[in-house]
Amino acid sequence: MKKLIAEFIGTLWLVLGGCGSAVLAAAFPELGIGFVGVALAFGLTVITMAYAIGHISGCHLNPAVSIGLAIGGRFDKKDLLPYIIAQVMGAIAGAGILYTIASGKVGFEAGGFAANGFGEHSPGGYDMISAFITEVAMTFMFLIIILGATHSKAPKGMAGLAIGLGLTLIHLISIPVTNTSVNPARSTSQALFADGSWAIPQLWLFWIAPILGAIIAGVVYKYLSPESND
Amino acid sequence: MKKLIAEFIGTLWLVLGGCGSAVLAAAFPELGIGFVGVALAFGLTVITMAYAIGHISGCHLNPAVSIGLAIGGRFDKKDLLPYIIAQVMGAIAGAGILYTIASGKVGFEAGGFAANGFGEHSPGGYDMISAFITEVAMTFMFLIIILGATHSKAPKGMAGLAIGLGLTLIHLISIPVTNTSVNPARSTSQALFADGSWAIPQLWLFWIAPILGAIIAGVVYKYLSPESND
Amino acid sequence: MKKLIAEFIGTLWLVLGGCGSAVLAAAFPELGIGFVGVALAFGLTVITMAYAIGHISGCHLNPAVSIGLAIGGRFDKKDLLPYIIAQVMGAIAGAGILYTIASGKVGFEAGGFAANGFGEHSPGGYDMISAFITEVAMTFMFLIIILGATHSKAPKGMAGLAIGLGLTLIHLISIPVTNTSVNPARSTSQALFADGSWAIPQLWLFWIAPILGAIIAGVVYKYLSPESND
Amino acid sequence: MKKLIAEFIGTLWLVLGGCGSAVLAAAFPELGIGFVGVALAFGLTVITMAYAIGHISGCHLNPAVSIGLAIGGRFDKKDLLPYIIAQVMGAIAGAGILYTIASGKVGFEAGGFAANGFGEHSPGGYDMISAFITEVAMTFMFLIIILGATHSKAPKGMAGLAIGLGLTLIHLISIPVTNTSVNPARSTSQALFADGSWAIPQLWLFWIAPILGAIIAGVVYKYLSPESND
Repeated sequence: MKKLIAEFIGTLWLVLGGCGSAVLAAAFPELGIGFVGVALAFGLTVITMAYAIGHISGCHLNPAVSIGLAIGGRFDKKDLLPYIIAQVMGAIAGAGILYTIASGKVGFEAGGFAANGFGEHSPGGYDMISAFITEVAMTFMFLIIILGATHSKAPKGMAGLAIGLGLTLIHLISIPVTNTSVNPARSTSQALFADGSWAIPQLWLFWIAPILGAIIAGVVYKYLSPESND
Repeated sequence: MKKLIAEFIGTLWLVLGGCGSAVLAAAFPELGIGFVGVALAFGLTVITMAYAIGHISGCHLNPAVSIGLAIGGRFDKKDLLPYIIAQVMGAIAGAGILYTIASGKVGFEAGGFAANGFGEHSPGGYDMISAFITEVAMTFMFLIIILGATHSKAPKGMAGLAIGLGLTLIHLISIPVTNTSVNPARSTSQALFADGSWAIPQLWLFWIAPILGAIIAGVVYKYLSPESND
Repeated sequence: MKKLIAEFIGTLWLVLGGCGSAVLAAAFPELGIGFVGVALAFGLTVITMAYAIGHISGCHLNPAVSIGLAIGGRFDKKDLLPYIIAQVMGAIAGAGILYTIASGKVGFEAGGFAANGFGEHSPGGYDMISAFITEVAMTFMFLIIILGATHSKAPKGMAGLAIGLGLTLIHLISIPVTNTSVNPARSTSQALFADGSWAIPQLWLFWIAPILGAIIAGVVYKYLSPESND
Repeated sequence: MKKLIAEFIGTLWLVLGGCGSAVLAAAFPELGIGFVGVALAFGLTVITMAYAIGHISGCHLNPAVSIGLAIGGRFDKKDLLPYIIAQVMGAIAGAGILYTIASGKVGFEAGGFAANGFGEHSPGGYDMISAFITEVAMTFMFLIIILGATHSKAPKGMAGLAIGLGLTLIHLISIPVTNTSVNPARSTSQALFADGSWAIPQLWLFWIAPILGAIIAGVVYKYLSPESND
């Protein structure tokens, strides 16, 4: 139960911090943080939680991560469903807090909130195929980083930093394409609060592509990894 | 006494570095550091002090942190008052040095300095309720990070980095809402030097909300934390 | 074989991440990541791979690095050719994925892609001599950092961070001069996809200068390094 | 002798990297790195060298640092002069390489290069008193960070990171005031290459103020530091 609460709080923080920086601060006139700031914010939610709750729940904060770790033999498959439920609930709670804060400004409109999208809802106008390839490739690499950096032969204590910075990097590359998901819980939470009718119909891609990328990574890293992992 | 001097110097640095970057460099024409730079600066004051004086005083630099640590069972309640006094005095000293430097420019006006505010004094025009929720939520998460990263089961030596980057993250999210406090000493120091009559009347929120968030975090993390903390 | 697959994936990531951030996100209107974001992205590809695959292949991701390590006595010369082939193939694969993603946008034109160049193809218009000196000096320092940070007397576990941040620094300095190579595999991959006929004719410089800088560094550090390296 | 070569290379890198990013990349149209990028670059020169040559020479790269460490009892006073000479020579060599690279652009003019200044030569127009206070305060804090993070009770291996990020922070605050020195070798190297006749006459401040700040820090930290330092 403590593990699930930790995942709930951690995923809440990922959404409140990552999507929050996008909604509240990215486009602030003159001084706004832009995509660099948003990319940094997403990564820092993972770094901070890795050191704060990593020793409680493993700090997955993401259904695709939990699935990739299970495929890679690092996470017990029977814990998958409760973890995913806690992550999605945490993400929605984070989006709710963010919505409440954001709406305390005169003239606030949710617009796309920080939802993920493709085609005309891609920030840079990238089509569905680009979006799908991007989400598969980015989540594949995210899981390679996670599986590698937490391997028993990797330097101790640095995994949280490497993984969080990996999420920053993924955002530096791919915000223009899909607004960057690699995390179905994060995408779901934003789609529920976004204006209009497009975000939920596009949500399937942000479940299927990240999970597909994570599964491939789990298989690949299992082959690559040196000796057994203690 | 050494502990109090360390807290004094550390909080002086937090204000001189964090608020200093905001006042001196954020809006410099063309090349200014913007909110990203200010967020980074606040975090770096904590990272640098964590490694420089963490082994002397614990490097709280913030009354809300000291209170949250006391509630979480990590800090002796009888040291609270001297720590808080040293922090507030250090913050005011930092603000004084900053004021002196800033006033050495032709045409300098303190304006809002780097004071925290809500309503018409929120950088993005957020109302009091948004400001209150933001300060509670951000300080809650700040203390979860601190309590978690300094737990005996967390990787050794990385706490200072995680905590400082947490403060950077908090600023990336919330500068537009309240100019980000999560630290009553920092808010007090700026309110004393800001022009006009609004900053001190709004100061109550930046004592009550951060301390409330810190207390909740102390209680929650005590429940979450695995086994005893040595 | 696992080592070569790791080098392939790592160099793919260096190009997809580093050049990808440049092509997709650097010049996004208003919110683009600029050279700072690209510099950060290149460094983060190395940091993430250092912790993910460093314990598999050593994480060179760069023919100049492999050569410099061989000269410095840290890498077996008979592994040079397979490593370099894996790196170049990985880089081209990364460029191919990036091209596919980038072309999913209406009106996409490859232009210079993220190719390296000098003279009229230098981002800031620097001539061939400046470009040559820059690539030699930057790769020299890159190898000094690598050879130093992986030395047995350097702090354990921090090398990946220092080396990746070194690549970020190199980009902060030299993108305006050559678009920053210091890596012949990266340069080759972009030249193949860039429009027009200039990138391949200029490619020689981005093989010779980085390798020259790496060789000098291997010799210098061998002299500088304290005692033997275990 | 190896120590002096290491200091020479390291200080060369500090100037080529830090001042180089300022001269070449800070004000690049649209995509330039601004003060944030320059601040990051200066810090990264120290981080990369700390891990690369820290185990050779201690990685001071700065006469004020060597003096502050000597006052604080961490560095042998009889090595001061050779270290300072190596640092100044390395800085000048770095400035020379930078000048050569920068001049390979049509229409290049050195202008102020990256020299430090006050009054009308302060980037933001700050007067001499502000400049003096800033340089004393920033160098004081820089040495507190150095002396603290390298103390035997501080977490092992993190000092290079904390100290480099400290230099980044100092630049985030004070570039608008003096273009940030805290390092007489860096200031000297730029003054020699800057156009016009103002930089050398203002150089005295960037020797006296940093050294004064360093000396005060050496005395203060000696008092503050817990028990003896092994």
